[in-house]
Amino acid sequence: MGNKTDFLNMNIAELNKHYVSLKERYAEYKNQTMKLDMSRGKPCPEQLELSKSMLDIVTSSDSLKAIDGSDCLNYGGVDGIPEAKELFSQILGVSSNEIIIGGNSSLTLMHDTVSRAMLHGVYGSELPWGKHSTVKFLCPSPGYDRHFAICELSNIEMIAVDMLNDGPDMDAVEKLVSQDDTIKGIWCVPKYSNPDGITYSDQTVDRLANMQTKERDFRVFWDDAYTVHHLTDKPDHLKNILSACKEAGNPDRVFIFTSTSKVTFPGAGVAAMAASVENINYIRKQIAVQTIGPDKINQLRHFRFLKDIDHLRSHMEKHAAIIRPKFEMVLNKLDSELGGKNIATWNKPNGGYFISLNTLDSCAKIVVKMAADAGVTLTPAGATFPYGKDLRDRNIRIAPTFPSLKELEKSIEILCVCIQLASINKILAER
Amino acid sequence: MGNKTDFLNMNIAELNKHYVSLKERYAEYKNQTMKLDMSRGKPCPEQLELSKSMLDIVTSSDSLKAIDGSDCLNYGGVDGIPEAKELFSQILGVSSNEIIIGGNSSLTLMHDTVSRAMLHGVYGSELPWGKHSTVKFLCPSPGYDRHFAICELSNIEMIAVDMLNDGPDMDAVEKLVSQDDTIKGIWCVPKYSNPDGITYSDQTVDRLANMQTKERDFRVFWDDAYTVHHLTDKPDHLKNILSACKEAGNPDRVFIFTSTSKVTFPGAGVAAMAASVENINYIRKQIAVQTIGPDKINQLRHFRFLKDIDHLRSHMEKHAAIIRPKFEMVLNKLDSELGGKNIATWNKPNGGYFISLNTLDSCAKIVVKMAADAGVTLTPAGATFPYGKDLRDRNIRIAPTFPSLKELEKSIEILCVCIQLASINKILAER
Repeated sequence: MGNKTDFLNMNIAELNKHYVSLKERYAEYKNQTMKLDMSRGKPCPEQLELSKSMLDIVTSSDSLKAIDGSDCLNYGGVDGIPEAKELFSQILGVSSNEIIIGGNSSLTLMHDTVSRAMLHGVYGSELPWGKHSTVKFLCPSPGYDRHFAICELSNIEMIAVDMLNDGPDMDAVEKLVSQDDTIKGIWCVPKYSNPDGITYSDQTVDRLANMQTKERDFRVFWDDAYTVHHLTDKPDHLKNILSACKEAGNPDRVFIFTSTSKVTFPGAGVAAMAASVENINYIRKQIAVQTIGPDKINQLRHFRFLKDIDHLRSHMEKHAAIIRPKFEMVLNKLDSELGGKNIATWNKPNGGYFISLNTLDSCAKIVVKMAADAGVTLTPAGATFPYGKDLRDRNIRIAPTFPSLKELEKSIEILCVCIQLASINKILAER
Repeated sequence: MGNKTDFLNMNIAELNKHYVSLKERYAEYKNQTMKLDMSRGKPCPEQLELSKSMLDIVTSSDSLKAIDGSDCLNYGGVDGIPEAKELFSQILGVSSNEIIIGGNSSLTLMHDTVSRAMLHGVYGSELPWGKHSTVKFLCPSPGYDRHFAICELSNIEMIAVDMLNDGPDMDAVEKLVSQDDTIKGIWCVPKYSNPDGITYSDQTVDRLANMQTKERDFRVFWDDAYTVHHLTDKPDHLKNILSACKEAGNPDRVFIFTSTSKVTFPGAGVAAMAASVENINYIRKQIAVQTIGPDKINQLRHFRFLKDIDHLRSHMEKHAAIIRPKFEMVLNKLDSELGGKNIATWNKPNGGYFISLNTLDSCAKIVVKMAADAGVTLTPAGATFPYGKDLRDRNIRIAPTFPSLKELEKSIEILCVCIQLASINKILAER
């Protein structure tokens, strides 16, 4: 019993008929010479507006001292002021002494953690990672392109592992790390994952914490970028991995990263990392050579604006109120344009910044190109895979937050037309 | 014809007499249980006050766009906003496209430049530096302890080279770099050097730019930290090394670093590096993996506050007005307490943050300890040399800027008493 709307069930004449009308729509869009950008997970101007008053709360007439009495204008405080540590300890569910505050970028903290590991090793390493002839990382895919870029720059070989509905394919992960002692790490975006919007199950967290690794100084790079970035009032729950690692007897296994880039300002936020006290003490000594300390004034600004986890949560609800309609619109549009046609699948995330869409195999690249020709910039096809290689050429990352609702609607319409055209081309070619 | 005040000319009885009265003074100081810190080159609160209004000029009601139209609150701009590049290009005498803006710390830019060189090499490298069994840096000494710490962390062997009155001993430098292909770099603080306060002569700059190096990817690490930090109205002149390198046919030889740490806020300034366009393009690609971009709001704040080089210069005159009396007081005190005694020499810098003092050989460590016992914290003896080893144990770095004039006076008095006591002990032991 085939669905009447299912492209795979249509005969050539029916497909050709669709193709002609879609081609007309595509030509119209092209004539409009639009310029729409859905390539990156950027907050929109209305979201930035939510935090603008933060610029007014640390002025020359305010106290510029941290609660420990240190002058935030002067040198000192290599790992952050106490109130910033306290705030991030609440966000991440760790102790204050398990936190290091960084500059404005968690990406920098991740890059630098990998660089330090390559040059000097991690706590417990017998050798710097870079002294081994081969270093490999597991890369659950689709994943975050900038994680993969760090590996490429560092000559770390990437092994793609499938993302399932509850996190990485843990059977594959466990098998690989138990056998291959050159695997030093795994990249994870455990909550509202980039791009799939998946939150790791408790079981996945426990398996990552407990698994036997052949390499003793293996680390989980836990990029908890979207930890407070819910879209619904029934947010996903993520199990605390640092606690799980401690319980498993592997307290030093995980490095946790996060930032306020999508809480306050992407250009001027505050980043932090968390790990066991042993890891943190080891890293702090190295960071003390790299810097006398990150910008404490901006930490003060953030603490005075965000206050505590409860206040932060209500702030994040305001973000959700702005971007939820965009996600809903995209999902409705995908449903109305592509639903029942059997040519694409997509996720419905409860948080984060992306909607991940899979086309028929071998269609993503041509769809992204066609959309670009009609003025819609998407994340390059393949970017969500190691080395930019999506072997099935099907994953497209949709970033709905930055464009206006109107621009977004137009962009998704164009995207859907491109997907249908590419799908028909593929189906016809295979007949 | 001996000087009557010269300790070296005194007989044992005379020395003992001095010793007894100095010992009494020392005991008095000790009884006062003071706590004075002259260990680091920190601006004092009055200096920080000069820039406080910078905190009021980027508020929610101001434009938050850079001159290229980019939103400073959002992602983007990996190497800085155009107006920040323009300001630093004026400060350093280079083109805007020879600049990369960093976060709040030039130390971080230096550390990261060394790390990248070790992991990936520099522009023109055949191999990452870290792939060689030995990497060495020349370290003109006394020098900046944090440069040496970067080498230690990175397993870079340090070769001390003497500082002369016009910069490093260039005969030694030229000989070393022409013969040893494991020497990859040299640390320089070319203007008002840390700690000597020496500015490199034009000839020294030219010799660094022109010298034949056995290693092709050799780099001069040019920490121009005190480039606008004059103490007098007849400031030292430093020849432009990037121009000199271009003229010499070695345009890629130098990495220049500076920051506003001692212009605005040490905890929340803006750092920059400069080099040839080829170097900058090479580095920018690597930095694009490390960060989406440094804090643009703080760049905007700095640009709107400092405006241009002329405005910056008058701002620096206000700094000088605050700290010049401190330098003068220290120099007067050293003169009155130690002058003519033939037990110490010191420099009279025209800028920068330090006064460098040499005791008789083998006295620095004990002097620093005695001062600490009387409540005065100095930079650890030896810190100004690679591996913390001052072979003659004589260099003491005085940082006069942070303490109040009154505290400073007391500190220097104590220091001078300690130097005299240690000197007499040494002279008597050798009789």
